[in-house]
Amino acid sequence: MKAVKLVIGNKNFSSWSMRPWLLLKHFGIDFDEVQVPLYQRNTAEKLGPLSPSLKVPALLHQETTVWDSLAICEYISEALLDGKGWPASPRKRATARSVCAEIHAEFPHLKEHWPMNCKASVDLSVPEPIANEIARIDAIWSCCRRKHGAGGEYLFGRFSIADCMYAPLAIIFNSYGAVLSAEAQRYADTLLADPWVQSWIAQGQAEPDDTASLSIVSNQ
Amino acid sequence: MKAVKLVIGNKNFSSWSMRPWLLLKHFGIDFDEVQVPLYQRNTAEKLGPLSPSLKVPALLHQETTVWDSLAICEYISEALLDGKGWPASPRKRATARSVCAEIHAEFPHLKEHWPMNCKASVDLSVPEPIANEIARIDAIWSCCRRKHGAGGEYLFGRFSIADCMYAPLAIIFNSYGAVLSAEAQRYADTLLADPWVQSWIAQGQAEPDDTASLSIVSNQ
Repeated sequence: MKAVKLVIGNKNFSSWSMRPWLLLKHFGIDFDEVQVPLYQRNTAEKLGPLSPSLKVPALLHQETTVWDSLAICEYISEALLDGKGWPASPRKRATARSVCAEIHAEFPHLKEHWPMNCKASVDLSVPEPIANEIARIDAIWSCCRRKHGAGGEYLFGRFSIADCMYAPLAIIFNSYGAVLSAEAQRYADTLLADPWVQSWIAQGQAEPDDTASLSIVSNQ
Repeated sequence: MKAVKLVIGNKNFSSWSMRPWLLLKHFGIDFDEVQVPLYQRNTAEKLGPLSPSLKVPALLHQETTVWDSLAICEYISEALLDGKGWPASPRKRATARSVCAEIHAEFPHLKEHWPMNCKASVDLSVPEPIANEIARIDAIWSCCRRKHGAGGEYLFGRFSIADCMYAPLAIIFNSYGAVLSAEAQRYADTLLADPWVQSWIAQGQAEPDDTASLSIVSNQ
């Protein structure tokens, strides 16, 4: 048994699970993956001993349990990466934490109506509230790339927690046919070409469709 | 002009603004307070030069702008408090970050239907989705106090970011007549008796009712 255990939900649609998984993979942290299928009668029972909020993701490390994607990423960076999960510059780090907090708590229309579904490939009409949220994410991606992206292809140059937090959006925008600016689309393409993102998508696509809840927004 | 500037909305109902304000006050950081009344025709215009997301709160410090309550609290702790915004123990800190992330992104029914309103004092019936969210917050408060509360009356003993994140809930529960367990109620009473919380409430109550939007959930 490894020192780090990550509890996740279905890879096809648990965008919150994907985030810390991607961080651990990118930084080469060895971990056990515990998958609990969501929206089943026994989901809460299975999550009980693993996650105090009864939600995924949760991370267990030594005597510590930490839950919620953003708190887990902060924990991984602090406890396992000597702070390297965030950009090294204090100013970039402040911006990175701001845009991560935004995707963590905002964008209610995208979260409700365009859930991640690695198997989906459709062209939907885009109602105005969703268009506005896509525009804000486009602005965040373009602005971070332009101001802070030197030294790499990710939001703050080298790969960071900010890319983990936004990676599911690249999948979502691709699935539902969102139209982005050239700059934002380049960043989305970088995320979609990332080997670990591709690996997550492939595993999500391989999951059986044994739940009726694919349209439900994944847990935190 | 002071080195730190905090941009906030209306004190009566901007619960997100209250959180970093309370952190700065509790740790004695001197700062300029810039209040931008929300839901006015010129709100976005006024926020434009101050907050990249056009939302409150935002914090300006030297060359850095940081926005979103949770990112601002992380920034204050790191840049201005040498990490003292969080509990010193890594394990307590992990739990503190988890419960802060929960209140940051979850509890949609409370956020939609029971917005902070420092002037309100009513007894509302409690629909099941709200009752479930109150029960989860009650469990968080009781569990943190019991497991981590030694050495003080706050969630993790001494005052921390976790208390900032939950302080508006004490006001909300008091305003709408939520019934809590004895342990959780004791903690709510600690928050309500806090001089800086009292100061915020008094200033919120003194604000004119010149907006029709008191029932709208405050910005992030």
